[in-house]
Amino acid sequence: MPNTFGHLFQITTWGESHGGGVGVVVDGCPPRIPLTEADVQLDLDRRRPGQSKIVTPRKESDTAQILSGTFQGQTLGTPISIWVKNEDQRAEAYKEMETLFRPSHADYTYQAKYGIRNWQGGGRSSARETIGRVAGGAVAQQVFKKFLPKLEIVAFVSQVGNLSSTVPVEAVSYAEVEANIVRWPDSTDAERVIELIEKVRSQGDSVGGVVTCVVRHAPVGLGEPVFDKLEADLAKGMMSLPATKGFEIGSGFAGTSLKGSEHNDAFYQEAGRVRTLTNRSGGVQGGISNGEDIIFRVAFKPTATIAQLQQTVSVTGEAAELKARGRHDPCVLPRAVPMVEAMTRLVLVDHWLRQRAIAL
Amino acid sequence: MPNTFGHLFQITTWGESHGGGVGVVVDGCPPRIPLTEADVQLDLDRRRPGQSKIVTPRKESDTAQILSGTFQGQTLGTPISIWVKNEDQRAEAYKEMETLFRPSHADYTYQAKYGIRNWQGGGRSSARETIGRVAGGAVAQQVFKKFLPKLEIVAFVSQVGNLSSTVPVEAVSYAEVEANIVRWPDSTDAERVIELIEKVRSQGDSVGGVVTCVVRHAPVGLGEPVFDKLEADLAKGMMSLPATKGFEIGSGFAGTSLKGSEHNDAFYQEAGRVRTLTNRSGGVQGGISNGEDIIFRVAFKPTATIAQLQQTVSVTGEAAELKARGRHDPCVLPRAVPMVEAMTRLVLVDHWLRQRAIAL
Amino acid sequence: MPNTFGHLFQITTWGESHGGGVGVVVDGCPPRIPLTEADVQLDLDRRRPGQSKIVTPRKESDTAQILSGTFQGQTLGTPISIWVKNEDQRAEAYKEMETLFRPSHADYTYQAKYGIRNWQGGGRSSARETIGRVAGGAVAQQVFKKFLPKLEIVAFVSQVGNLSSTVPVEAVSYAEVEANIVRWPDSTDAERVIELIEKVRSQGDSVGGVVTCVVRHAPVGLGEPVFDKLEADLAKGMMSLPATKGFEIGSGFAGTSLKGSEHNDAFYQEAGRVRTLTNRSGGVQGGISNGEDIIFRVAFKPTATIAQLQQTVSVTGEAAELKARGRHDPCVLPRAVPMVEAMTRLVLVDHWLRQRAIAL
Amino acid sequence: MPNTFGHLFQITTWGESHGGGVGVVVDGCPPRIPLTEADVQLDLDRRRPGQSKIVTPRKESDTAQILSGTFQGQTLGTPISIWVKNEDQRAEAYKEMETLFRPSHADYTYQAKYGIRNWQGGGRSSARETIGRVAGGAVAQQVFKKFLPKLEIVAFVSQVGNLSSTVPVEAVSYAEVEANIVRWPDSTDAERVIELIEKVRSQGDSVGGVVTCVVRHAPVGLGEPVFDKLEADLAKGMMSLPATKGFEIGSGFAGTSLKGSEHNDAFYQEAGRVRTLTNRSGGVQGGISNGEDIIFRVAFKPTATIAQLQQTVSVTGEAAELKARGRHDPCVLPRAVPMVEAMTRLVLVDHWLRQRAIAL
Repeated sequence: MPNTFGHLFQITTWGESHGGGVGVVVDGCPPRIPLTEADVQLDLDRRRPGQSKIVTPRKESDTAQILSGTFQGQTLGTPISIWVKNEDQRAEAYKEMETLFRPSHADYTYQAKYGIRNWQGGGRSSARETIGRVAGGAVAQQVFKKFLPKLEIVAFVSQVGNLSSTVPVEAVSYAEVEANIVRWPDSTDAERVIELIEKVRSQGDSVGGVVTCVVRHAPVGLGEPVFDKLEADLAKGMMSLPATKGFEIGSGFAGTSLKGSEHNDAFYQEAGRVRTLTNRSGGVQGGISNGEDIIFRVAFKPTATIAQLQQTVSVTGEAAELKARGRHDPCVLPRAVPMVEAMTRLVLVDHWLRQRAIAL
Repeated sequence: MPNTFGHLFQITTWGESHGGGVGVVVDGCPPRIPLTEADVQLDLDRRRPGQSKIVTPRKESDTAQILSGTFQGQTLGTPISIWVKNEDQRAEAYKEMETLFRPSHADYTYQAKYGIRNWQGGGRSSARETIGRVAGGAVAQQVFKKFLPKLEIVAFVSQVGNLSSTVPVEAVSYAEVEANIVRWPDSTDAERVIELIEKVRSQGDSVGGVVTCVVRHAPVGLGEPVFDKLEADLAKGMMSLPATKGFEIGSGFAGTSLKGSEHNDAFYQEAGRVRTLTNRSGGVQGGISNGEDIIFRVAFKPTATIAQLQQTVSVTGEAAELKARGRHDPCVLPRAVPMVEAMTRLVLVDHWLRQRAIAL
Repeated sequence: MPNTFGHLFQITTWGESHGGGVGVVVDGCPPRIPLTEADVQLDLDRRRPGQSKIVTPRKESDTAQILSGTFQGQTLGTPISIWVKNEDQRAEAYKEMETLFRPSHADYTYQAKYGIRNWQGGGRSSARETIGRVAGGAVAQQVFKKFLPKLEIVAFVSQVGNLSSTVPVEAVSYAEVEANIVRWPDSTDAERVIELIEKVRSQGDSVGGVVTCVVRHAPVGLGEPVFDKLEADLAKGMMSLPATKGFEIGSGFAGTSLKGSEHNDAFYQEAGRVRTLTNRSGGVQGGISNGEDIIFRVAFKPTATIAQLQQTVSVTGEAAELKARGRHDPCVLPRAVPMVEAMTRLVLVDHWLRQRAIAL
Repeated sequence: MPNTFGHLFQITTWGESHGGGVGVVVDGCPPRIPLTEADVQLDLDRRRPGQSKIVTPRKESDTAQILSGTFQGQTLGTPISIWVKNEDQRAEAYKEMETLFRPSHADYTYQAKYGIRNWQGGGRSSARETIGRVAGGAVAQQVFKKFLPKLEIVAFVSQVGNLSSTVPVEAVSYAEVEANIVRWPDSTDAERVIELIEKVRSQGDSVGGVVTCVVRHAPVGLGEPVFDKLEADLAKGMMSLPATKGFEIGSGFAGTSLKGSEHNDAFYQEAGRVRTLTNRSGGVQGGISNGEDIIFRVAFKPTATIAQLQQTVSVTGEAAELKARGRHDPCVLPRAVPMVEAMTRLVLVDHWLRQRAIAL
């Protein structure tokens, strides 16, 4: 099921950068969930190209049409098909990709795997594929609004190049994240980050970074304890996003240098609930959520497509040089935030339904 | 499918620390693959407790019995059922876990999720569950021996606590890894690492670390480019292992501070093959293997069960203190090496079969 | 995966009778298969309402648009999204279904299951859902054209009401089936069948029947011998079509009165191939195709929606009478033929890919 | 997943006729369900060879051992591994099958598919494989005992050769079915059926028949309306049993000759519940249970292995004659009854859990 994600709440995404558009079929959504196109559009707009001066200027309204699965503003329990047309297609800007492989992009591996590829705009490897994920995540969010109204998922950019955020994860709010175009919830230095991205772009270059995500008020008991551990499915979801190179939860790589006596989260009882004094577990123990904040970090590499001259080879094996045209993000991080949130929602809603099935 | 892993080559593991044993059913293995119990035993012995002075002293021979799926030393194409008895069971050593939750262990979350748990030895959350994975990985290895004899998967301990290995990943050999009990392929400082683990144990404490894994001679074209990206499935496989907190591939988290012009792997042609000059991609581009070494790192936290007094709560909510008895690894890293290799094999064999189905 | 069918070659259908249309996402199709909209349209036209005087007069062109997954006339290996707009929507003709349940239709069970339903035209339970299946089957057919060009799948109407066909299954050709509007491959009595259907319609009634399907030149070795037996997956595929009540393969129910000595198909060797003298097995033994013709029959009940007065209840539980308006097939059989063929193709292509993965 | 059945409540069966035994892993069973080996043994004994004079005399106690997944008599929510040893193995009695294919058996197709087969006793194609299904069904039954205590599943033999039962399906009780060795719930003619089977056996022959199954007090709303229709999953489950050739639900094939006005089940209201006056739907409408009795019939062919001389070919293609030795059922029907019940339970429990996940 290469283009399907989830076990009970499933999304199947389709579409290429250039062609009839991109979309998603959401299957397994419970019935009678309020859902309109406006509910989906909100996050699509946060993911949209052209939303600010530091992202790709491709002009796409990314307008969602719900083609099925709802009736009179509610879900029917049947598949929800959502379609976004491609509007600003410029195949000619990718003409050189017909014969040349962009370094560190998917051009070569697609060609090797399939013996064919849609070289226009990256085809299926384009970040436009994530529109389907973000739309699916918006549907999941509607389920949570009805059944788990306190659940809160906030992702934000916590590192760009060498600049790292120092805000405490626990306190970051959606409003703070959306307060600036880089989705950097610390107004004191967001401008520096924006300047860095602009500088990198002016050099025809790109830069990587980290998105941090926190889930608050998740129910206890989500996650299956062996292969479908909550962190394993989160890791898969995140590492399936374009340009990701790493995932860590709770104490992550830094925690590996600690001793057990330093790392363990002591339990205590509070208001009839089992709590932990610290949260190095990142909200998950034994693969199952424990009710504390779920906190994880996702590494994004610098965008592969850059406007500098690079060494490469052609489809027929000749050495060549390539300087990309086309319209690209100098830094994927700001637009990655809604993608990370969407994948988080999809993982959580699926596990929540799975737990519902066997609950006592 | 909480206890099943893989899409075409599937393993289903079962069993608890205390009870009738642990095992695995391997389904989807191609027919006519040479397979005997000895093939499986080799890696089980590397995973086995009691193998050295720095791991848990639980006395288990971990002897594999193949109950089905082979005939006259070859696989039949039918499910391969492998069973390992539990031998050294000491339920009484876990008596206090009946009522107390071990900090940072799975005791509390299992209880919250299921309303019941086998508190003897951690039940299903015990690392004994990984026996099924290692046995399944050994079957996968037999498939590779027949069809991809050059494929090589080498995992090793690259960090324990604050000690980090400096050996170049590219060169590490299986023999070097197995040359010492900590699976640290640098004989110059392996002894220091062993001493660290012994010291930690003598303090009733534990320590974390990192396993690095390299896959050599993987075919080009493995991985599905959207959700089932090769790195996404590797991440899921690794993050489903007990005690893992992070995964990174290629440049990983460190690469996020680079610019695209520094990070991209330039292509060149060599002996009729497309190669990359550097390998920050870690052998995977666009979710698909590119034929370079696949290199990734997995973070393991310090073992949760320690012999020091810890603050916790009881199943009925009272504050309590707990000092674990039982037999535990002061450092899971040496025994995690064959687990990481097994999960790697399982991911690769599954994607190899998937690619075989659609290959030109 | 309620709306997904297949393990490697997967279709996910979506859409309701009234709304934005119906469609399918085909995932897992091998790359470089020639595919255009015309390839899909052929079977959609055979399934289309309004194609003759004996089917529903709903005016739908059922024009397929391929939105993704192809490039320059070939498949890319990425999901193929196909969309068919609803054109002739008359929600008002179904107004009484808002409050009344049609006997033997899905109105009541949808309401009971989901607490909501799109009562316009049957919503998701409409036979329009099968457009996605037929389109998906057309893609599968393109795979066969390339890889198994001799494979032939011919379905036809073999019974309508009390009229039964006597043509030998082995000899029926596509041309004969398509030679008349009822898809009854015996020109000598097709007219009688048409008259029966017309008479039934004039009475505001409907009639059931049987579709027989034969697969010729199927490869040996398709089918997994336990749960995913070829006949089990065919049975599931057929019984998932609307209005089906039965499935039998080979000797079927009639064969149950035979003795083993009468029923067994003796083997002989012919032209280097193992053949059977008779074919009571219907081309499948032990769940696996044996290279003989695969022959099965599917029972379709009379259309539930009729224009006669029927006793029913309302959504609030009051006794009521209902006489359906709307546009309905007096006999689903002629249009069921391409549906049966499509499901057969989908089952076969999936098993063919599965076998390819493990083939020697 | 060739050896796995179910989506949330999954069984994976393994094992061959000759070898280390047969077994099942049940995954997805809710926690805290009472379960002991005795609960499983009851149905295994009804399936057991040697239980009467009309079944195979192979001497197997078929004793179930639960190796995992329970604790103090309750399920843990973890995989339940159940193992049954093979005891009465006589490989030598199958020696001629090493080189000769039994007509209408799986010998040839296994050989063609896998290039290898365990010819001892039929290997994986042996009916011993169904032990895992029956054991899994027994676990499902425990779930129903707790959550749906009124649910009743009764299967019985309704036809053997030319003898057909005339008892009304609605009234058949478990006690009546178990009152005689042929599981024929009409004491007036059970003896005739037994005589028929004995006569057939004395001739070295075999005979087919039909099992009818009725499900009483099923909840309304089970079944997914498109591919995973309740009748589609029942059909798949039944057609995956060895020796089955047909499945029909409700009016089945006979209903195809009716008109809609004769076939439709009128609705009425009774005790606050929507009911139907007749039940030609067989308890399922639009793929979803409607609360009426679910009634279906399964066709079983005569056992392929007979003790008469038959024409066949050898593995190397020579013409040959074969007269089977070994121990075989002259009629599989009596032992098929618990298999049909088990598959019914497995389908129902899976759909019940799926519905639970999305229930309002």
